[in-house]
Amino acid sequence: MPEKKKLALIVESGTLDRLYCAFILGSTAVSMNWEAHLYFTFWGLQALVKGAMEKATLPSDYAKMEPMMRERLKAMKYPTPYDMLKRMKASGLLKIYACTPTMEMFAIKRETLIPEVDEMVGASTFLTIAADADVTLFI
Amino acid sequence: MPEKKKLALIVESGTLDRLYCAFILGSTAVSMNWEAHLYFTFWGLQALVKGAMEKATLPSDYAKMEPMMRERLKAMKYPTPYDMLKRMKASGLLKIYACTPTMEMFAIKRETLIPEVDEMVGASTFLTIAADADVTLFI
Amino acid sequence: MPEKKKLALIVESGTLDRLYCAFILGSTAVSMNWEAHLYFTFWGLQALVKGAMEKATLPSDYAKMEPMMRERLKAMKYPTPYDMLKRMKASGLLKIYACTPTMEMFAIKRETLIPEVDEMVGASTFLTIAADADVTLFI
Repeated sequence: MPEKKKLALIVESGTLDRLYCAFILGSTAVSMNWEAHLYFTFWGLQALVKGAMEKATLPSDYAKMEPMMRERLKAMKYPTPYDMLKRMKASGLLKIYACTPTMEMFAIKRETLIPEVDEMVGASTFLTIAADADVTLFI
Repeated sequence: MPEKKKLALIVESGTLDRLYCAFILGSTAVSMNWEAHLYFTFWGLQALVKGAMEKATLPSDYAKMEPMMRERLKAMKYPTPYDMLKRMKASGLLKIYACTPTMEMFAIKRETLIPEVDEMVGASTFLTIAADADVTLFI
Repeated sequence: MPEKKKLALIVESGTLDRLYCAFILGSTAVSMNWEAHLYFTFWGLQALVKGAMEKATLPSDYAKMEPMMRERLKAMKYPTPYDMLKRMKASGLLKIYACTPTMEMFAIKRETLIPEVDEMVGASTFLTIAADADVTLFI
């Protein structure tokens, strides 16, 4: 059986637009039967703290677009970022990595993160995965 | 004849600095006889609405640099982002993709986009192109 | 002897979080005996002006996190971005490129940049390196 294609993302951003970018790419990848490896760092990692992703907003430069965007998302019955993450997870093709240096820098403990996190690792794990991936992006 | 090298960019940003990054990379790629595949999403896609690219500004954190940068660009007779896009297009090596989920989220219609857009597609098209590209970046 | 693996980064951002991202990835790469090729453009390039990196701050949207982050970095005795850059440089595996179009756009002269800069080049040099790299990211 041939190896699956792989998507490797560093999710540094924690804003609503960027989380959607990462999760739309991730969801699309798993729907194509690719593996998706998402490494969360900085503001992306902070979005993995329980309850935080639900509060993600657009960057302040785009704040005035947010009410219209939320209205459209509702009308489209578009899934929330956390719903998308859980669906990806259910596919068995998503692995979520939490960046250990970020956890130290912001004093974030494992037990405060959502349970879907698979591993707490440093950048060397990401580089090893990315070196073998078909598509690698920093979001 | 060997296949051309390929650059694949997701253009998520719509600010002047990031549009220049994307278009300098794209222009350089086509000048090297590479194919350039630019997939516009979120604020990048909004820059493809007719008349919008001309109004792109720097992020507010860098607003104070903008008058000096615009003066230098003028002195250098540097092309505008839209001029760069049209020149790339004239090479026959540029393909522009508009992200359909973004169009839905922001209620953007095809007829409001600049005519240089080639296709309206979802992320699976981008991932397929990127998996075969030589350089892939998220801007 | 097999060729070394290669990391190629475009560093467009000049904020503290993004400089740390770039330099943690770069430091990790050289610790794995990879080559690290860092191409600095826009706000990233401006961080290479002597004295500028020391003044890097978080983006204004995250300004309220900065005092806590700085306190933690101090408690961890975490190296500054410039210290990390100098350590990478000492490995002999880091090459630093300054983007010539940015230098022109912002009237930045070579002698104002830190001495660790190896080359002043355009995007074609970066694309050539990236086409041959194992991991390429835009930060």
